[in-house]
Amino acid sequence: MDAALANPVRLVQGVWCAVLTPFDAAGLPDHSRLALHVRRILAAGVDGIALFGTTGEGQSLSLNERRAGLDALLAADIAPSQIVAATGCASLPETIELTRHAVRSNCAGALVLPPFFFKTVNDDGVFASYARVVDGVGDPRLRLYLYHIPQLSGVAISSTVIERLAIGYPGILAGVKDSECNLDHTRRLLSRFRELAIFVGYEPHLPAALAAGGAGTICGVANLFPRLLRRLYDNALAVGHHDDLRRVENFVAALEHYPLLAAFKALQADLTGDSGWATLRPPLVALDTEARRAWLADVAASGVVVERDAAGPH
Amino acid sequence: MDAALANPVRLVQGVWCAVLTPFDAAGLPDHSRLALHVRRILAAGVDGIALFGTTGEGQSLSLNERRAGLDALLAADIAPSQIVAATGCASLPETIELTRHAVRSNCAGALVLPPFFFKTVNDDGVFASYARVVDGVGDPRLRLYLYHIPQLSGVAISSTVIERLAIGYPGILAGVKDSECNLDHTRRLLSRFRELAIFVGYEPHLPAALAAGGAGTICGVANLFPRLLRRLYDNALAVGHHDDLRRVENFVAALEHYPLLAAFKALQADLTGDSGWATLRPPLVALDTEARRAWLADVAASGVVVERDAAGPH
Repeated sequence: MDAALANPVRLVQGVWCAVLTPFDAAGLPDHSRLALHVRRILAAGVDGIALFGTTGEGQSLSLNERRAGLDALLAADIAPSQIVAATGCASLPETIELTRHAVRSNCAGALVLPPFFFKTVNDDGVFASYARVVDGVGDPRLRLYLYHIPQLSGVAISSTVIERLAIGYPGILAGVKDSECNLDHTRRLLSRFRELAIFVGYEPHLPAALAAGGAGTICGVANLFPRLLRRLYDNALAVGHHDDLRRVENFVAALEHYPLLAAFKALQADLTGDSGWATLRPPLVALDTEARRAWLADVAASGVVVERDAAGPH
Repeated sequence: MDAALANPVRLVQGVWCAVLTPFDAAGLPDHSRLALHVRRILAAGVDGIALFGTTGEGQSLSLNERRAGLDALLAADIAPSQIVAATGCASLPETIELTRHAVRSNCAGALVLPPFFFKTVNDDGVFASYARVVDGVGDPRLRLYLYHIPQLSGVAISSTVIERLAIGYPGILAGVKDSECNLDHTRRLLSRFRELAIFVGYEPHLPAALAAGGAGTICGVANLFPRLLRRLYDNALAVGHHDDLRRVENFVAALEHYPLLAAFKALQADLTGDSGWATLRPPLVALDTEARRAWLADVAASGVVVERDAAGPH
C-alpha cells in the first residue's frame, strides 16, 4: 500500500490505553508478550493504544527499541489506526526521527513530550521545539498530540503555546493529552480549544472531562481494567452509573500509595499469571515481596472487579 | 594504537571546562568551531574539557550527534586524555552505547547522569541504573564520574548510592561532579568519599572545595574566562589572591539574572566576534536584543576582566 496515498488518519477518541511494556528475561522489550497484551485489551473494548508513553516506560527505551517495538506490533497485525506512538525524546533530532517513522507507519497520531531535560524553558522555547518537530517531519499526515505532564517532564505546555501551534499548524495539531491530573486545567483547555481533542490521563476525571467536551482518555488503568474504562466512557453522560466511577476512584486512591508503574506491573503479573510482567527497567524497580502483597490486598479491598478474562492466558 | 593495551587513563583534576556547543547555520553542531574553541581554552590553561554536558546542551543532541562530535574532536587532534565525555541519556541502552564509545576512544572518563525522565526514583533504582551501565560497558578502562545535578535531572544521587557503587566497582567509580551548587553537600561528599575525585560545578565554591580536598571544577565559566579559572584554582590555597574569587562571584551573581546558557553564548559571541555562537537549539533560545544588551552591560559592570585573546579569532 502506498502510504502517501492512503492517508488513513483516524479520529482519536474514546478509551486509549497507555500500554505497559513487558520485558523478557534479558531485560529487552518483549514483542510477543506486548502484541498478545494489546490484542487482549483491544478485544476487551479499548479503542486504541498509546505506545511507549510514560506508562510504557518509553523514556527508558532507546530510539531503536521504540522503532522496533512499533514495527513488531504492526507485523503482528495491530492496525496503525489504533496506535498513537509516543515519540518525544530529550533531543529534537530523535523526536523528529521517531515521529516521522510513526507517520510513515500510518499511526493515528504522535504523542509528543517537549524536550524535558532543561527546566524553566520559556514559551518561545517550547513553541520552537514543536515547530521544529512539525517542520522536520514535513508530512501533512502528521497528527500531533501534545503531551502535557509537567510533574515528570518539568516543562509545562502553556495555553499560549497551544494557541500558537493551533494557528501555525492547523490540521496538524490535533490534540492534547493532559496528564497534569488537575481537572481545572483540563476544563480550561476544553473551553479554550474546542477544535482540539483533549484527553485526560487521570482516569477519575474522565466523566467530568467528557461532560465538558473532552475526547476521552489515554490512561494506564485500561491495561488492567479495560472493560471498566470502556463502561466508564460509554456511560459517562448517562444518569446513574456511578458505581464504575467509584471503583476507578477507589482503585486510583489505593494506587497512590505505591510507585505507579511497579504497582501496575505487579498487578498485571498477578492478573495474567505471568510473573515476567513484574519486571521494570531501571531506574524503575519492581515492588518487593512485602509491598507487592500489600498492594494486591489493597486492590482487593478497593472493590474493583478483577478482569482476569481480559488479562489472563487465552 | 591498540586501545586495549594503551590504557591511558589519566587523572582528572584541576580546571575542566564544560564546553559550549556551537551550531552552524543549519542548526547542526559545528565541529570546526568547536575544535577551534577547545584548542583556545586548552591553550589558555584549562586541563581538559567535559563534552556535551549540560553547558554543551548535550541532552539536546542526538546520540549520533554526540558520538560524531567526539570523533570530530579526536580527528582534530584534541587528546582523548583531555576529554571527559558526558554520556548520560534518558535511556540506559543509549547511555551504555555512548559510554562504551567514550571508553574505546580513550577518553579520560565518562560523566553520567542518572536516567532523568522518571522522578521520585529510589536508591535501588539509581544504583541499578549505574550498575547496568558499568556492566553493560564491560570495560575495565571505564572511569565513571557521577553527574549530580538534581535541579535539572530531578534525580539526586545519594551518598548511599555512591557508597554502594564505590564498593561494587572500585577503580571504575572515579568521582562525582557535584552541580547541586550547595557547598555543604559538596563538603559532605568530600569528607565521606576521600578516595573519589569530587568536582564542583558552581565556580565560586572552587577554593572552598579545594581546601576541603576537592579535585577541581568542571564548569561553564571556563569557556569565557579560562585564565581566570586557572588562577582561581592555582591560587586557591594561597594566602590573599581573593580578587579573582570576587570577580568570579560577581560574574556568577550577574549571570543568575539571565537564562544561563543563552547568556553564556551571547557573551561568547561577543568575545569572539562570531555571532554564530549565540545560537542555541530549542528548547533553549537566544537572548533577545534588549536582554543581550543588558547582560553585556552587567558583565562589564561585574569587574571581570575580559579575555578576548583567549576567545577571539587567532
